[in-house]
Amino acid sequence: MPDAVDLIRAKRDGRELSAAEISWLIGSYTAGAVPDEQMSALLMAIYFRGLGAAELRSWTAAMISSGDRLDLSAVQAPTVDKHSTGGVGDKVSLILAPLVASCGAAVPQLSGRGLGHTGGTLDKLESIPGWRAQLTAAEMIEVLAATGCVICAAGPGLAPADRRLYALRDVTGTVESIPLIASSIMSKKIAEGTSALVLDVKVGSGAFMRDISDARQLAQTMAALGDENGVRTTALLTRMDTPLGRAVGNAVEVEEAIATLRGGGPADLVEVTLALAAEMLRLVGIAADPAAALSDGRALASYRRMIIGQGGDPDAPLPAATQAEIVTAPASGWLCTLDARAVGVAAWRLGAGRARKEDPVRAGAGVVCLAKPGEQVELGQPVLELRSDERPGFARAREALSGAIEIGPEPPEVSPPVLERIGL
Amino acid sequence: MPDAVDLIRAKRDGRELSAAEISWLIGSYTAGAVPDEQMSALLMAIYFRGLGAAELRSWTAAMISSGDRLDLSAVQAPTVDKHSTGGVGDKVSLILAPLVASCGAAVPQLSGRGLGHTGGTLDKLESIPGWRAQLTAAEMIEVLAATGCVICAAGPGLAPADRRLYALRDVTGTVESIPLIASSIMSKKIAEGTSALVLDVKVGSGAFMRDISDARQLAQTMAALGDENGVRTTALLTRMDTPLGRAVGNAVEVEEAIATLRGGGPADLVEVTLALAAEMLRLVGIAADPAAALSDGRALASYRRMIIGQGGDPDAPLPAATQAEIVTAPASGWLCTLDARAVGVAAWRLGAGRARKEDPVRAGAGVVCLAKPGEQVELGQPVLELRSDERPGFARAREALSGAIEIGPEPPEVSPPVLERIGL
Repeated sequence: MPDAVDLIRAKRDGRELSAAEISWLIGSYTAGAVPDEQMSALLMAIYFRGLGAAELRSWTAAMISSGDRLDLSAVQAPTVDKHSTGGVGDKVSLILAPLVASCGAAVPQLSGRGLGHTGGTLDKLESIPGWRAQLTAAEMIEVLAATGCVICAAGPGLAPADRRLYALRDVTGTVESIPLIASSIMSKKIAEGTSALVLDVKVGSGAFMRDISDARQLAQTMAALGDENGVRTTALLTRMDTPLGRAVGNAVEVEEAIATLRGGGPADLVEVTLALAAEMLRLVGIAADPAAALSDGRALASYRRMIIGQGGDPDAPLPAATQAEIVTAPASGWLCTLDARAVGVAAWRLGAGRARKEDPVRAGAGVVCLAKPGEQVELGQPVLELRSDERPGFARAREALSGAIEIGPEPPEVSPPVLERIGL
Repeated sequence: MPDAVDLIRAKRDGRELSAAEISWLIGSYTAGAVPDEQMSALLMAIYFRGLGAAELRSWTAAMISSGDRLDLSAVQAPTVDKHSTGGVGDKVSLILAPLVASCGAAVPQLSGRGLGHTGGTLDKLESIPGWRAQLTAAEMIEVLAATGCVICAAGPGLAPADRRLYALRDVTGTVESIPLIASSIMSKKIAEGTSALVLDVKVGSGAFMRDISDARQLAQTMAALGDENGVRTTALLTRMDTPLGRAVGNAVEVEEAIATLRGGGPADLVEVTLALAAEMLRLVGIAADPAAALSDGRALASYRRMIIGQGGDPDAPLPAATQAEIVTAPASGWLCTLDARAVGVAAWRLGAGRARKEDPVRAGAGVVCLAKPGEQVELGQPVLELRSDERPGFARAREALSGAIEIGPEPPEVSPPVLERIGL
């Protein structure tokens, strides 16, 4: 039997761990035989030393086999999922899953909650009265088979090693490691049973990856892991230097998603959503025009069925914040920068996000961007609307926004939201 | 109040931690508010990033102030201690403390137990019937004042942060870090209250530092920490590629120490001991000839007083192992290599050392070197005598010794045991 400290030392010194050693480590950690303090030292050694391709495969495989693998064979349509690495104002899943479902694919989307300045899809959907994120595997498959899509929380049996490891990484400064991020995401997606996957890897100030070469490396690492495990995987690198769309929060983002499903919505949000939809449909060989499905109401119909299938009332009024404040333009000119991270932190402090995993979120809190980069503004014109239920959040949100709005004398160059495609 | 994860990330990313941050970290860890898994991630980050000079000072100061600092002002003679980084057959303390005491200094030596292939001074002395390692601070000062020397375990109030950190480092692969080693050793020595300190930094296969430049760096780091904290500190780098003296174990090492105190003993052991004694006496400004004190019985008299002062009977017979086996020379020629680490591991497996902190050691177990490098041997001539109370240890000890004895056609170059002096 290996000794954990020998394996920590081996990794620390740059030696490669074998498949058997990694399998023993992850298994023993999940069983509680290797304690947190040994695993966190190993994670920090991995932060510095990385994982080789074979190690990464073994690590991911060990996380998958720590739990169950869903069987989606009862679903007739080809399955395809999307995963976003997280951004500010990223309500794409709410539109994309029903959109792709309305084109004939099945979208089994296991999603997460927000932590820090990025929101979580489940938190957003939970602003809809009655809607349930927690489904059993049987319920999930039933909603998926009946409506073509489902967005729910991963059950406790799915990659439980990842659940424990993620919580540990969060408190030990070992989140920011490409192999650890890649294996965490991909172990859940592979265990979920989807046949294909499109990754939305966000790049920019509001994203986890601020640098395009890191984002590219993460995308390539995840795509390779997917392919090796029988999940056809590609990635789009998309811009996250300013919020996606205009709404940042929970209920406000649901409203914007519904507006988009009705054929409206902000141009950047529509563009990213359609690009991801086209990629997903391509991967499962469905020749359909997602733009048509979005404009003619088919996607909206799928959305309503999905919400109802998960106990929600799509016609119920959404919660609204009790108080609002306006942030105005500090000068006249062209809005050059509206920093994604600053807006994300502001929304978080207004109550849209949580400081600790146990905290609740405020459904009505958030930020609405009344102007976006590339638009002309006048001194004193409203740029942001801050919404909260609690007065003290406003001052802290304004602090976060200090320097976040930049106004210049000329129109800025605004690059398109989809930067690059990676994979097959 | 700082957040531990932010400090871990800062260190991970190569930023310098402030004195206040380090003080908060060590204090919170000692109080149980920062958990093991965060501290072990930080320790691994320190392993990779190191500690700057200011950080190291703060880290050491925080460890010292986690507990009490002994007050030795009741002792009339100038205080001076020695610390060895650990080797095989290193019974120097047993001779050196009474020797230096007999020359007029006071030696307040807090010592440790063996773990792994290196022995511990307390384990060795505990083979003497009645001798007690655990003294209260008052008892320690009483023995020191009365006999000029004392060798005992550090009380629980002395640098308790180091006690917890050391146990954590031991299981998380973070022992081998020069700043962490230096701060661990020096925090205890500074808290002990000695006015001067000589470090015996061992170099070679049987030592913690196999490389002379690492040993030099460790010595310089520790000497600087001592001087900054008002403890005049120098270091000797000494050879540890073959056991020091001929005896490796517990009771066998006490026997060899007594033979040396009677004016005999192996030449290398005498040479290292006298060099350290001269250095200690120089630091406290005592002009005395330690060689004379060793040969005329003054050192032995001090030794007997110290043993009696700690409850031991210096005339009681020492425990002996029940079984012995001989390892013979595999060829005729000159003994070129007798590998220190291999002999240390063999003694350990024979019962002289412990696998876990809780295990007892066998007083009679060990290895006696019947030949030393530089001596001529005949094929089949006894080279090592293995001693144990338990038959299975012999085969495992012989395994450890595989390749440890090298015999050549010419006399090897044997370098002197003291390699270098570092400091003031």
